[in-house]
Amino acid sequence: MTETADYPDEPTPDAWLSEAELAVARARVPMLYVDAVPVRVDDSGDVVAVGLLLRVSHDGTMTRALVSGRVLHHERVRDALLRHLEKDLGPMALPLIPASPQPFTVAEYFPTPGVTPYHDPRQHAVSLAYVVPVTGDCEPQQHALDLAWMTPEEACSEQVQVEMIGGHGYLLRQAMAHVGRLG
Amino acid sequence: MTETADYPDEPTPDAWLSEAELAVARARVPMLYVDAVPVRVDDSGDVVAVGLLLRVSHDGTMTRALVSGRVLHHERVRDALLRHLEKDLGPMALPLIPASPQPFTVAEYFPTPGVTPYHDPRQHAVSLAYVVPVTGDCEPQQHALDLAWMTPEEACSEQVQVEMIGGHGYLLRQAMAHVGRLG
Amino acid sequence: MTETADYPDEPTPDAWLSEAELAVARARVPMLYVDAVPVRVDDSGDVVAVGLLLRVSHDGTMTRALVSGRVLHHERVRDALLRHLEKDLGPMALPLIPASPQPFTVAEYFPTPGVTPYHDPRQHAVSLAYVVPVTGDCEPQQHALDLAWMTPEEACSEQVQVEMIGGHGYLLRQAMAHVGRLG
Amino acid sequence: MTETADYPDEPTPDAWLSEAELAVARARVPMLYVDAVPVRVDDSGDVVAVGLLLRVSHDGTMTRALVSGRVLHHERVRDALLRHLEKDLGPMALPLIPASPQPFTVAEYFPTPGVTPYHDPRQHAVSLAYVVPVTGDCEPQQHALDLAWMTPEEACSEQVQVEMIGGHGYLLRQAMAHVGRLG
Repeated sequence: MTETADYPDEPTPDAWLSEAELAVARARVPMLYVDAVPVRVDDSGDVVAVGLLLRVSHDGTMTRALVSGRVLHHERVRDALLRHLEKDLGPMALPLIPASPQPFTVAEYFPTPGVTPYHDPRQHAVSLAYVVPVTGDCEPQQHALDLAWMTPEEACSEQVQVEMIGGHGYLLRQAMAHVGRLG
Repeated sequence: MTETADYPDEPTPDAWLSEAELAVARARVPMLYVDAVPVRVDDSGDVVAVGLLLRVSHDGTMTRALVSGRVLHHERVRDALLRHLEKDLGPMALPLIPASPQPFTVAEYFPTPGVTPYHDPRQHAVSLAYVVPVTGDCEPQQHALDLAWMTPEEACSEQVQVEMIGGHGYLLRQAMAHVGRLG
Repeated sequence: MTETADYPDEPTPDAWLSEAELAVARARVPMLYVDAVPVRVDDSGDVVAVGLLLRVSHDGTMTRALVSGRVLHHERVRDALLRHLEKDLGPMALPLIPASPQPFTVAEYFPTPGVTPYHDPRQHAVSLAYVVPVTGDCEPQQHALDLAWMTPEEACSEQVQVEMIGGHGYLLRQAMAHVGRLG
Repeated sequence: MTETADYPDEPTPDAWLSEAELAVARARVPMLYVDAVPVRVDDSGDVVAVGLLLRVSHDGTMTRALVSGRVLHHERVRDALLRHLEKDLGPMALPLIPASPQPFTVAEYFPTPGVTPYHDPRQHAVSLAYVVPVTGDCEPQQHALDLAWMTPEEACSEQVQVEMIGGHGYLLRQAMAHVGRLG
């Protein structure tokens, strides 16, 4: 679960929330997140491709990630989804935010590994997860090197799964199960 | 639950299924249907309008209806959804068929009134119900006189609800509850 | 949205989280909550009754409420659901916590009225909402005077709706729409 | 997709529907089915075991199957679920039929392999799929030799998956993804 909004070098709507204050909150209450699985669909809504962000993690290894980020104070979940998708995929991605707030699952990232399939060493984060069709041109922003589109089967393959950390690979497979394209 | 595919004067993919054969099947097994609630959404996915078809029923009264129709033999549910939306809203409606087959509810239309909130005097039909954003230009086709866009609140109002028959008004309110816009 | 865990006179698992610290977090990040609609079901799973808590609000008026409460740091959502149900309905309520974490909706309580149908003057809370069948004997605990079972239709009636505050009446109707018992 | 209701030697509520009539309907319209994944859950609702039926297929090989069967004319989906669960697991299984008709997915069994992950050589069947906790004593009935309880991980293992036919293994993994226990 990487989230660019947490990088100190970028002004965000919650820039007023200092790193110190955020650290305090993180140690006290679960942080609310959203996870989005960007997909391309055909005319019948069938998922034909999944978009994964390529990133360099803190220790220099390459990882693949979903779009993920925090919901801010006084921000609606659907606005947080749109903000993070535009931040990671660029302003021309044209994501179709779901009409219903019902997520396909809730991913509970614990700082302690093994409690759930998800893990975030920094915090206890609870994330509402959505499959989001994007219809425009995507270009990776900020801390992502690339956005790769692959078939659902490729995305669920062992080769890609090992490149996803913190449970993102597991969440991706749950998303594909939800749309009937589990590899 | 009106379905134009059943009108004898129009050739459809199941034209080979004679009226007599369909009548036999209808008396023996539940018919599988899809119901679609056409909506307009804003950039955040929030529903801003609902589209209702204006029809003249068999006894000459005006009624408002959702998009509804039968799933054919050897047809995927998502293809049936697309077919009925294009048939009722026109070829330029550009509906966004959901990526997931999970419906927001299952509407069970019984020939006997009162078993469920839904009723179809012709048959026992079980319908998978979806909220479907449409992005293009809609023009009512075939047996519909008009397509009216109204706010979720207007669509849930008593005045509009009484114009919907067979439980479509009830299903519409369930759809609005699902997207967080129950009037 | 009343939550007994916030009352200073009761030791809870997060008693170490001082009122001051909680106040700080509340002003900075959305609080994660769960809402549960307690129901009685028949053998076919059909909802036959809804349980509402009767409470006296701060200004002395009687209100009816759903089971609602905060998810603690390092607590799973399903454990928070169980904890709040046992706290409000008593240790013999025997709630059947859902196998899936997918909520029927997400209720976003804003401190500013009108942003969503839900409102909590104390904080921005985002609540995962579930319908939870209870099979045992319920007895209201703590700050509830009574637990009243009523039919879905009664619970959705204007008379009961006006006794529910903060959007709980709205959420209850969404729950009844989800189970096919909207009044 | 085996369904004991189709065996000619057992009287069922639709015994009046002759084999010949059913064959006609099967060739003309999609058949409506329900699929149930029987599970054991702990107090927090977490799935701890999955129940699979052991059957001998027509060619003498052993297969493992979910509970599956047809929805009859004028039968509610929830009543069909209860009937098939009691038929396959015995009268003391005490299944907890879901309060909501929303399935976790819709499985489309095509007579032609490869259209979807599900396949039924006899017919086009569309099945509403539910995860159903059972709380009582199960004993396999009729054409099942045994009911085996295994962990979600075992049920998702390659060894068990190859024993499931027609897409039941795939549907089982979708169910486990839905409850957060995908192996």
